[in-house]
Amino acid sequence: MEKKRTTIVLFSGDYDKAMAAYIIANGAAAYDHEVTIFHTFWGINALRKQEPVTVKKGFLEKMFAKMMPRGAEKLGLSKMQMLGMGPKMIKHVMNKHNALTLTQLVEMAQEQDIKLVTCTMTMDLLGLQKEELLDGIEYAGVAAYLADAEDGNVNLFI
Amino acid sequence: MEKKRTTIVLFSGDYDKAMAAYIIANGAAAYDHEVTIFHTFWGINALRKQEPVTVKKGFLEKMFAKMMPRGAEKLGLSKMQMLGMGPKMIKHVMNKHNALTLTQLVEMAQEQDIKLVTCTMTMDLLGLQKEELLDGIEYAGVAAYLADAEDGNVNLFI
Amino acid sequence: MEKKRTTIVLFSGDYDKAMAAYIIANGAAAYDHEVTIFHTFWGINALRKQEPVTVKKGFLEKMFAKMMPRGAEKLGLSKMQMLGMGPKMIKHVMNKHNALTLTQLVEMAQEQDIKLVTCTMTMDLLGLQKEELLDGIEYAGVAAYLADAEDGNVNLFI
Repeated sequence: MEKKRTTIVLFSGDYDKAMAAYIIANGAAAYDHEVTIFHTFWGINALRKQEPVTVKKGFLEKMFAKMMPRGAEKLGLSKMQMLGMGPKMIKHVMNKHNALTLTQLVEMAQEQDIKLVTCTMTMDLLGLQKEELLDGIEYAGVAAYLADAEDGNVNLFI
Repeated sequence: MEKKRTTIVLFSGDYDKAMAAYIIANGAAAYDHEVTIFHTFWGINALRKQEPVTVKKGFLEKMFAKMMPRGAEKLGLSKMQMLGMGPKMIKHVMNKHNALTLTQLVEMAQEQDIKLVTCTMTMDLLGLQKEELLDGIEYAGVAAYLADAEDGNVNLFI
Repeated sequence: MEKKRTTIVLFSGDYDKAMAAYIIANGAAAYDHEVTIFHTFWGINALRKQEPVTVKKGFLEKMFAKMMPRGAEKLGLSKMQMLGMGPKMIKHVMNKHNALTLTQLVEMAQEQDIKLVTCTMTMDLLGLQKEELLDGIEYAGVAAYLADAEDGNVNLFI
C-alpha cells in the first residue's frame, strides 16, 4: 500500500501558526505519512540559526536580516502579541504543561525525516544565504512543492 | 457511493475568517459532504458561551479567559478592525443583506450534523474547561483530525 | 488521463499572500493543472481596477470602497508593513531580482486560462459592482467553489 502524504506550505512567521504546522506535520509523520513542509516568505524565519552568521550582503538584505526574527524562538504571535508579553505568557504556560517548544518541534521533525524545504525564490528576495539556516534543509521552488502536493492527501497553507 | 469529506482546521479567532470557515462548511454539508471543523488555538473562541461561566482556574488561565473574546459575536476582524468600528459596520451591512451571523452559522452547522471538534491540547494550554464551551462539541487531538483529513476531498487551514 | 486540479480560496487582501497564491496558481497551470482562484472577502481587492469607476452606491458601500485598496498594487503586507515602507522595500527588491509584480502575476494567470472567480456574496456585502473589477472575471457562490474543490488535488485557503 502506498504511503499517505501530507504537504504543508508554511508562509506565516507567527510562532503559534508555525507551532500548529509542526504539530500537524509531526502527527502525520507519526501516522506514517510522508511529510513535507515547504517554507516560504516569513515561514523561513523558523529555520534561521539563532546565533548571528557572518555573510556578505548588500544594504537592503542586511536590513531584512536585521528586522526579521532570527530563529524559531524569536517569532511573535498572530494574536495577543501584547507588546511582547503574549509570547512570554504562552511559553510560560507551554512549559508548565510540558508542551514542546517550536525549536523542539523542528528537531523532532528532522528526527522523523520530515522533508523541510525552503523556497529558493524567497531566499533570493530576502537576501538570505544557506549558511544562515539550520543544517539538513532542502532548497527548491514551486515546481518541487507542486510535485509533492499533487499526490497529497492533506494539503495545507498555513 | 462513498460520501465526500470536507475537513477544516479553524485556527483563526477572526470573525471574518470564522465566517468563511462556517460558510464553506455549511455549503459542503448541504452538498452532502461529511464535514468536520477542528477548532484549535484562537479558533476555539468561536465556540465559547457568551455568558460568563464560573469555573476554578489559576491566575494565568483567568487572564487568558479575560483577554480572549467570549463567543462568536465578540470576535474582531482580520482587516479593517478600525478601533472596533469595523465589526459593527460589517454586522450592519450583513443585517441589511439578511446574511447569517456567525452565531447563526454555528447553529446551522450543529443542525446539519457538522462535527465540531475542539483541540484538547489548546484547551489545556489556554486553561479552558468544557463548561465554558457550547454543548454538543467533541474533544480530540491531532490524531483524530488526521484520521478525518487523510480521507478528505477538501482540506483547509483557516 | 484526467487533468489534475488546483483550487485556491484567496481570502486575504495582503500583497504577499496574494503573491503566494498567484505564484502557486501559475506554477500549477504551467504543470497542466486546471486551476481556479476563488476570491472572497478581502481577496477581491486584488481584482479591483486601479482607476476609479463611477457607479451608484449607498453611503456604507462608498465608505468600504474608499477604505479598501483599489487594485493589486495598493495592497499592504501581512508582516513588516512598517508604516507603508515595507511594501516599497519588497517591490524594490522584487524589481532588482526581476520578480513579477502581483499585477503581472494576475495577467499571467489570465493568459494561462486560470479561472478567476469572485464570490457574489462578498460583492453584495461590500457593495462592489462588476464594473469595478477587471474584465474576464467569473462570478459565483460557495456551491461553485465546492464543485471545483471536491475533485481537486491541491486545495488551499490563503
